[in-house]
Amino acid sequence: MSDPNKGRILLSVTGFNPRRWHELLSVRREVVLEPAGEADPSIEYAVVWKQKPNVLSRLPNLKAVFSIGAGVDHLFADPGLPEVPIVRVVADNLTQYMTEYVCWRVLDHHRQGRLYRDQQKRKVWHEPPQPPAGAVSVGIMGLGNLGRAAAKVLLALGYTVKGWSRTGTRMDGVETFGGAGELDAFLAGTDILVVLLPLTPETTGIIDFELLSRLRRDNAIGGAVLINAGRGRLQKDADIARALDEGMLREASLDVFETEPLPLESPLWVHEKVFVTPHAAATSDPAHLAGPMLDQMDAFDRGEPLRNLVDREAGY
Amino acid sequence: MSDPNKGRILLSVTGFNPRRWHELLSVRREVVLEPAGEADPSIEYAVVWKQKPNVLSRLPNLKAVFSIGAGVDHLFADPGLPEVPIVRVVADNLTQYMTEYVCWRVLDHHRQGRLYRDQQKRKVWHEPPQPPAGAVSVGIMGLGNLGRAAAKVLLALGYTVKGWSRTGTRMDGVETFGGAGELDAFLAGTDILVVLLPLTPETTGIIDFELLSRLRRDNAIGGAVLINAGRGRLQKDADIARALDEGMLREASLDVFETEPLPLESPLWVHEKVFVTPHAAATSDPAHLAGPMLDQMDAFDRGEPLRNLVDREAGY
Ligand SMILES: NC(=O)c1ccc[n+]([C@@H]2O[C@H](COP(=O)([O-])OP(=O)(O)OC[C@H]3O[C@@H](n4cnc5c(N)ncnc54)[C@H](OP(=O)(O)O)[C@@H]3O)[C@@H](O)[C@H]2O)c1
Ligand SMILES: NC(=O)c1ccc[n+]([C@@H]2O[C@H](COP(=O)([O-])OP(=O)(O)OC[C@H]3O[C@@H](n4cnc5c(N)ncnc54)[C@H](OP(=O)(O)O)[C@@H]3O)[C@@H](O)[C@H]2O)c1
Repeated sequence: MSDPNKGRILLSVTGFNPRRWHELLSVRREVVLEPAGEADPSIEYAVVWKQKPNVLSRLPNLKAVFSIGAGVDHLFADPGLPEVPIVRVVADNLTQYMTEYVCWRVLDHHRQGRLYRDQQKRKVWHEPPQPPAGAVSVGIMGLGNLGRAAAKVLLALGYTVKGWSRTGTRMDGVETFGGAGELDAFLAGTDILVVLLPLTPETTGIIDFELLSRLRRDNAIGGAVLINAGRGRLQKDADIARALDEGMLREASLDVFETEPLPLESPLWVHEKVFVTPHAAATSDPAHLAGPMLDQMDAFDRGEPLRNLVDREAGY
Repeated sequence: MSDPNKGRILLSVTGFNPRRWHELLSVRREVVLEPAGEADPSIEYAVVWKQKPNVLSRLPNLKAVFSIGAGVDHLFADPGLPEVPIVRVVADNLTQYMTEYVCWRVLDHHRQGRLYRDQQKRKVWHEPPQPPAGAVSVGIMGLGNLGRAAAKVLLALGYTVKGWSRTGTRMDGVETFGGAGELDAFLAGTDILVVLLPLTPETTGIIDFELLSRLRRDNAIGGAVLINAGRGRLQKDADIARALDEGMLREASLDVFETEPLPLESPLWVHEKVFVTPHAAATSDPAHLAGPMLDQMDAFDRGEPLRNLVDREAGY
């Protein structure tokens, strides 16, 4: 039962229907989709995904903003974002999905799914040389919550795993690199690049032709591979197509794109070396996320600290 | 340097070129491809893959037979197989390959690779419902060396894992079943069936229409899936096609077939729900296997026991 003595929640999302979120959050607090008037003092928390412009600035008693999703770039796009704590999603459920996606795509490139599907079409019975996972190096850009979880299972699958992050975060069994100064060494030893970075001013457009051309191409799998499951604006779509066409990349799996949905005229849709998924690597399932959000609001009201806070300075 | 004081090796294979094996085994012992005459007392070990008929019976001083490959069904097909110990391949390298193959195929079925490839062809941007791995049960038939290794990584990926074996072999984190009496319960709780059985008189043709129709179809992934990486004669090719067409199976990944290479006229080549690989799930790489075989021969000569012995009674 929603409790009228608790501060209300503003639920502001664009791009999908918030019905399910409304239902699940209403269980404990009153939920509104728009602030009442120019200043609505009844609202203490906001739950948002690409919130409508100028809604957050109308909440004088706002205590915290909760992002639906692990990334918060959609929030920072709002110039009216108030100076309150921002909480992002860290959930076993979402992490699990991302680990599945990354292992699936790494295996399909390494085990030559495209070649075998093509051979089958032509009824060709032929076993190409196949390096074992240990001979293949998977380099993860962004060794955060999602990157580390994927790395753990990639290690269990036998891959050589490398990781690159802003601060050089360490991880057992993984060769780690940090910052711009170590990017070159990281790329030069990476056969399959997995991008799990957040989108910030520093990372926008980082996956360009120049970066892709620094990957290790003279390797056991006959070329470099790109897997991007972070954010579309980390990459330059046109540079990926060019890198594939000029042989800098052998194949790519892309879950995210500069513009989503991917425009019909994009050459990536029809590129035989590209595997496209519709930003579906890891879904935010409200059934797993709404309860923990409500718990955090109650805890914060009692004076306890918030978890999974975003560092506004770093932008993620 | 091959040592003339050591017993010689007979290398007898059909279906592929034994040049590489010859090279690697010759490093320590003399290797011949045919016994000299009706009885060749100089040969003490045989290394075989589908050996030529009537060669093993001509070796009066044969001490042991080494199978190239984890399966030994090819050996038992020979009526002249002498009563000496049989050693099969158990190698990290081969186990590693098989684990990759199994995880790759399980992920591609669970994460809807076929649907996404089809959507991409039609430029459709659509996210279908996606159950997490925990909602999917992978049942492994044959929880031996390969089955257990695959189970371990499937667990790390988050799947619910079940195992069926002859004696009901136990494994942590896996619900295990044993023998014909528990097959029904095993199948009724399995969404994705992974076959890693050896081919014996008991297991020949076990994967038939009737067995496939006992899998769980009313499940999170919208149907049952078959993955066979054991041996082709475990299955009835025609029954698999029928099970797919009649909706008993949603999809299949087949690495092995009743007749190999898969005949051009087989409907499995062109079935849109079937993924075909040419018995390539796990290769026996001579570079990893020849050395340990030679070590075992030397150890046996010194009176030490052989490892990875085949149980002739059980047939595997
Ligand atoms: N496709 C999908 O379905 C989907 C779903 C969920 C999330 N995502 C994306 O995945 C991203 C990662 O999520 P997460 O939970 O793993 O985030 P996280 O825990 O915040 O980790 C971010 C990682 O990126 C690194 N990083 C940040 N800025 C960097 C820079 N300028 N240079 C180098 N490394 C930098 C961080 O370095 P430090 O370790 O040094 O801090 C950290 O290792 C999200 O931001 C979101 O965009 C996509
Ligand atoms: N496609 C490829 O590239 C490839 C490569 C290598 C191997 N293989 C195949 O994989 C098979 C398995 O290899 P492995 O090394 O894991 O063999 P393994 O260690 O001998 O294990 C065999 C498993 O099957 C079970 N089993 C045997 N007969 C059975 C029966 N009648 N009913 C139920 N379960 C039975 C055994 O039960 P218990 O545990 O009770 O003994 C055991 O769990 C090989 O025989 C070979 O055919 C294929």
